[in-house]
Amino acid sequence: MALRLICISPAFNSMGQTLVRAMSTQSGAKNIGFVGLGNMGGHMATNLMKKGHKLHVFDISKPACDNLKAKGAQVYSNTSELALKSDFVITMLPNNDIVAKSYEEMTANGVNKDTIFIDSSTIDPNLVKQLQKMISGKGARFIDAPVSGGVPGAEQATLTFMVGGTNEEYNAVKSVLECMGKRITHCGDYGMGQAAKLCNNMMLGISMIGVSEAMNLAIRLGLNPQTFAEIINSSTGRCWASEVYNPVPGVTPTAPANNDYKGGFSTDLITKDLGLASGVATASNTPIPLGAMAHQIYRTLKAHGLGNKDFSVVYDFMKNTKYN
Amino acid sequence: MALRLICISPAFNSMGQTLVRAMSTQSGAKNIGFVGLGNMGGHMATNLMKKGHKLHVFDISKPACDNLKAKGAQVYSNTSELALKSDFVITMLPNNDIVAKSYEEMTANGVNKDTIFIDSSTIDPNLVKQLQKMISGKGARFIDAPVSGGVPGAEQATLTFMVGGTNEEYNAVKSVLECMGKRITHCGDYGMGQAAKLCNNMMLGISMIGVSEAMNLAIRLGLNPQTFAEIINSSTGRCWASEVYNPVPGVTPTAPANNDYKGGFSTDLITKDLGLASGVATASNTPIPLGAMAHQIYRTLKAHGLGNKDFSVVYDFMKNTKYN
Amino acid sequence: MALRLICISPAFNSMGQTLVRAMSTQSGAKNIGFVGLGNMGGHMATNLMKKGHKLHVFDISKPACDNLKAKGAQVYSNTSELALKSDFVITMLPNNDIVAKSYEEMTANGVNKDTIFIDSSTIDPNLVKQLQKMISGKGARFIDAPVSGGVPGAEQATLTFMVGGTNEEYNAVKSVLECMGKRITHCGDYGMGQAAKLCNNMMLGISMIGVSEAMNLAIRLGLNPQTFAEIINSSTGRCWASEVYNPVPGVTPTAPANNDYKGGFSTDLITKDLGLASGVATASNTPIPLGAMAHQIYRTLKAHGLGNKDFSVVYDFMKNTKYN
Amino acid sequence: MALRLICISPAFNSMGQTLVRAMSTQSGAKNIGFVGLGNMGGHMATNLMKKGHKLHVFDISKPACDNLKAKGAQVYSNTSELALKSDFVITMLPNNDIVAKSYEEMTANGVNKDTIFIDSSTIDPNLVKQLQKMISGKGARFIDAPVSGGVPGAEQATLTFMVGGTNEEYNAVKSVLECMGKRITHCGDYGMGQAAKLCNNMMLGISMIGVSEAMNLAIRLGLNPQTFAEIINSSTGRCWASEVYNPVPGVTPTAPANNDYKGGFSTDLITKDLGLASGVATASNTPIPLGAMAHQIYRTLKAHGLGNKDFSVVYDFMKNTKYN
Repeated sequence: MALRLICISPAFNSMGQTLVRAMSTQSGAKNIGFVGLGNMGGHMATNLMKKGHKLHVFDISKPACDNLKAKGAQVYSNTSELALKSDFVITMLPNNDIVAKSYEEMTANGVNKDTIFIDSSTIDPNLVKQLQKMISGKGARFIDAPVSGGVPGAEQATLTFMVGGTNEEYNAVKSVLECMGKRITHCGDYGMGQAAKLCNNMMLGISMIGVSEAMNLAIRLGLNPQTFAEIINSSTGRCWASEVYNPVPGVTPTAPANNDYKGGFSTDLITKDLGLASGVATASNTPIPLGAMAHQIYRTLKAHGLGNKDFSVVYDFMKNTKYN
Repeated sequence: MALRLICISPAFNSMGQTLVRAMSTQSGAKNIGFVGLGNMGGHMATNLMKKGHKLHVFDISKPACDNLKAKGAQVYSNTSELALKSDFVITMLPNNDIVAKSYEEMTANGVNKDTIFIDSSTIDPNLVKQLQKMISGKGARFIDAPVSGGVPGAEQATLTFMVGGTNEEYNAVKSVLECMGKRITHCGDYGMGQAAKLCNNMMLGISMIGVSEAMNLAIRLGLNPQTFAEIINSSTGRCWASEVYNPVPGVTPTAPANNDYKGGFSTDLITKDLGLASGVATASNTPIPLGAMAHQIYRTLKAHGLGNKDFSVVYDFMKNTKYN
Repeated sequence: MALRLICISPAFNSMGQTLVRAMSTQSGAKNIGFVGLGNMGGHMATNLMKKGHKLHVFDISKPACDNLKAKGAQVYSNTSELALKSDFVITMLPNNDIVAKSYEEMTANGVNKDTIFIDSSTIDPNLVKQLQKMISGKGARFIDAPVSGGVPGAEQATLTFMVGGTNEEYNAVKSVLECMGKRITHCGDYGMGQAAKLCNNMMLGISMIGVSEAMNLAIRLGLNPQTFAEIINSSTGRCWASEVYNPVPGVTPTAPANNDYKGGFSTDLITKDLGLASGVATASNTPIPLGAMAHQIYRTLKAHGLGNKDFSVVYDFMKNTKYN
Repeated sequence: MALRLICISPAFNSMGQTLVRAMSTQSGAKNIGFVGLGNMGGHMATNLMKKGHKLHVFDISKPACDNLKAKGAQVYSNTSELALKSDFVITMLPNNDIVAKSYEEMTANGVNKDTIFIDSSTIDPNLVKQLQKMISGKGARFIDAPVSGGVPGAEQATLTFMVGGTNEEYNAVKSVLECMGKRITHCGDYGMGQAAKLCNNMMLGISMIGVSEAMNLAIRLGLNPQTFAEIINSSTGRCWASEVYNPVPGVTPTAPANNDYKGGFSTDLITKDLGLASGVATASNTPIPLGAMAHQIYRTLKAHGLGNKDFSVVYDFMKNTKYN
């Protein structure tokens, strides 16, 4: 990793201010800013520190900051200052609006031209393109690198990163992202990381409902859930949701179904992702009948108060609890 | 295999007729009746002969019979006679009505009590239960053993058989089915083979449309199809349809998408299977929103003349050929 | 009405038994058998008596029979006997199986050749055709005449009857049906009454969900429910469900929405009708995407214990009670 | 109408410029600006002239302008100038972006404080709120007043206007809108006109597909289309689409179905409206399963090149032309 390092001298940012150059050590350790220390971000920042990087962190939650501080991170109350000290800034935030506002604030006082901003939130690919223009206009670089793998992947550093940017940018961020994930995929130009994430998650949202329907029907027809899961998983109906994350309690030991649908990937989040997918599908006139229907079904779950349960709770919602 | 053979003496059937007992040789070769020599059945019967079994066959198509005759099978014009000569009778027929009628005719003159009838067609699990009653009432045995794997699986003897019947019956037919498939699964009691098949294929039908939507949206957003397929296949959206049978031309070399959606598993057949799944879901009051929607989409394809194309043609149907 | 009466002499039924001919009075009063005295049937039978007809009734519920007896009907424990005494027999029963079984029992001892059997249940048009064959084979006549208008229409004698049969049969039953309804429509040949009923009710089921979605969205966007209902009802979105039976409490005073969704047309019944519609659509390869989706939505309501509520409860199910 | 006129003296706009006050005649004639002279706008502007108003018009299409000029309108190449001459400015434009851009240009040089801008386009209710803020910030007034009734309604001055604004503003524009429509509804505050329009049109889009499914199924089951249309229209399945605009050729003489689905309300427009409805439903977490599905179906029609056909062409798309 050390060989990839190039020590860059201090620079002027686009607004003419002299910047204190973030100094990377010869050992390959980088100054990495991290904004958003939630369920995912906290683990990701921790994993970066485990690999020897220096972390500069921000979150609106004090406990989240304290947690990282105890592990050795430096906490900031001002993201602009945080960004100016960082070789890389990673943002992991809940939605379009917060991402947009965060980047405005963070870059309001100018940027370090050598900083690469990496947004790992899940947002609209069009917002990615706008942010990339804004930040490249200020002289720094911005790429999208949303993730899949959920909280366990964040904790175990086994996330998949879907990177949208140039080849050069992809190569520049790869080793940093490898501290947090096991698969760093270059999806294409700016926004293509988000596009890949949304399309993948649309399929995930469809699969989970499909598996729930198939398992529920199988059980009601008299099949043993375990037996049917084995059949589908060795046949043409198999998918990640049936194999790894089966929504029926007792089938996949590690799945949230066995923990009252707690933890995991929330209905709120899959609904948000399907909303983003629906938006880009509408804008591009792409028919997504099952994606749209899946979106509506998860929205109905939210309306029934299941937004913070794992999305596999759709099985529980659908099964005939009061058959008549 | 030879050790499993028990030479059974001639017997009287339930109607008091003396039956000519089907004589199995010491080498383990069986007399196997095969009714329905279509795209699937022709290959299946051939594979049984390759394993040394003696085949007694029937089909309404003369060329289909001639084909098997040339390979050494004995052709019958009367299924009743065929059945009386067989240790096992395998039926591979297009739909409920033809299966029902076929079993009526085949057993009208009585049955050999040692014969096990194996229906590998895809039919309503309730019809299975009716046929099982009828045939056990006549003194013989009947089980359901529908398959998945399609024409290639039939040709290469790699089918999956989903068996519904007692443990004893499952054990009795296993070695015969292994001549045609690589996975013989005991799903449960009578009808459970069909139930498993229908639930699996419902999921397959959903997956294929979901993958088509996701691939189409990804491509329209600017992703390279190959790149996106690799991403989804290493992530949470992966499924059999995305990995093995991708509906976008150029992605999975062996998929029908690369052959103008010819061959493979027809839209007519997935529509039929989803119709059966819908029927049992209605009868059991099980909600299957995506299954029902998938059914309607394939039906719309049929209405547009695509019934005999591979079901992955749904991608071609959905993509924006005339975007405006 | 009196002119239409023809006094028919005693006759032999197809099995050679001498039948006691149902004697119609000169005043036009008929002997009318009524089988099925539930929420609908009880009112219908009562209305026939109010017009002077002599009622011969049967139901498995003793209170239902007692109720009619108190109003002057003759109660039977044997439908075969009931039928032999009747010029017309009207059946109003819950489903295919009960209708089929009822007609078997009722005609097991032969029929009066002059009797016209009128089935006002909602059943599969194909079962209509089978029953028509069976009963015409025995020498009597059978037509389908399902109704719309619900319990209020039954009570107020304002039902719509959808008649399937010959012109002669339609003319023969019209005056009887007019005692219970205000619109007697000749839909076509045997089964076409049921076909019309199912297609109408499929549209009704779709409309109610559509109105629920539109009202819910309007309210959430800030519109006053009354104001929006007036707008939609004077515009292109208007339908029976929005005008007469609005699912939002407070909008249509007489609608079940104002009575905690009690009474009216139950979710169980619309689900049953959509199941029948789905069945005939599958059999005829007709795409019904919204009909199928509506079916699944009502089925989900049933799974949540709302089967015996009025079907407009779908609004209550969908609205965001726990928005987050 | 003359009594309502108040002659207002010249005024200064918010940027301090002296404005040439639009002079309204004593007869009640107003100076009315009209921007967007398409299929709808051309007729609407013409109807305003018929009532004696003085029209100041703009469109990017020269033939559209020439058409109005020939009828007596004054044509402008600059909407800012047009607006400054007008008591009322009505905009009738295709989408969010064009409306937003048009108002920016039109008000760039300041506004006449007495002018009321009326947007009759169909746009996002949130854009309405933004435009209202912008224009009230400049000192003039802005309200939304989208329409229903289509090209025939525009031509015959029978449109419905759905007005969002204060009571005072509603009263101020009512008599002007009455020159173009027969029903002017006050829906509520700013944006509520659009909200009402979108919710109504979502229901319309659902109804049309529902009626198409019901008619198609009825016909395939053997019913005569005319007969079934009469039944549904006198029963609980009736809706505007079945009564006034039946999608089956031959049923409603004036419907586009009888003219090869030409004219009328295009698939492109209903798809656009459903896209807007989906957007506000997503933003408000409102489940709209049938609305979403209808949106996808029309989008599929667009993908098949039917975007410029009347939206009732969905019947033609769904019916089984190649049944097998």
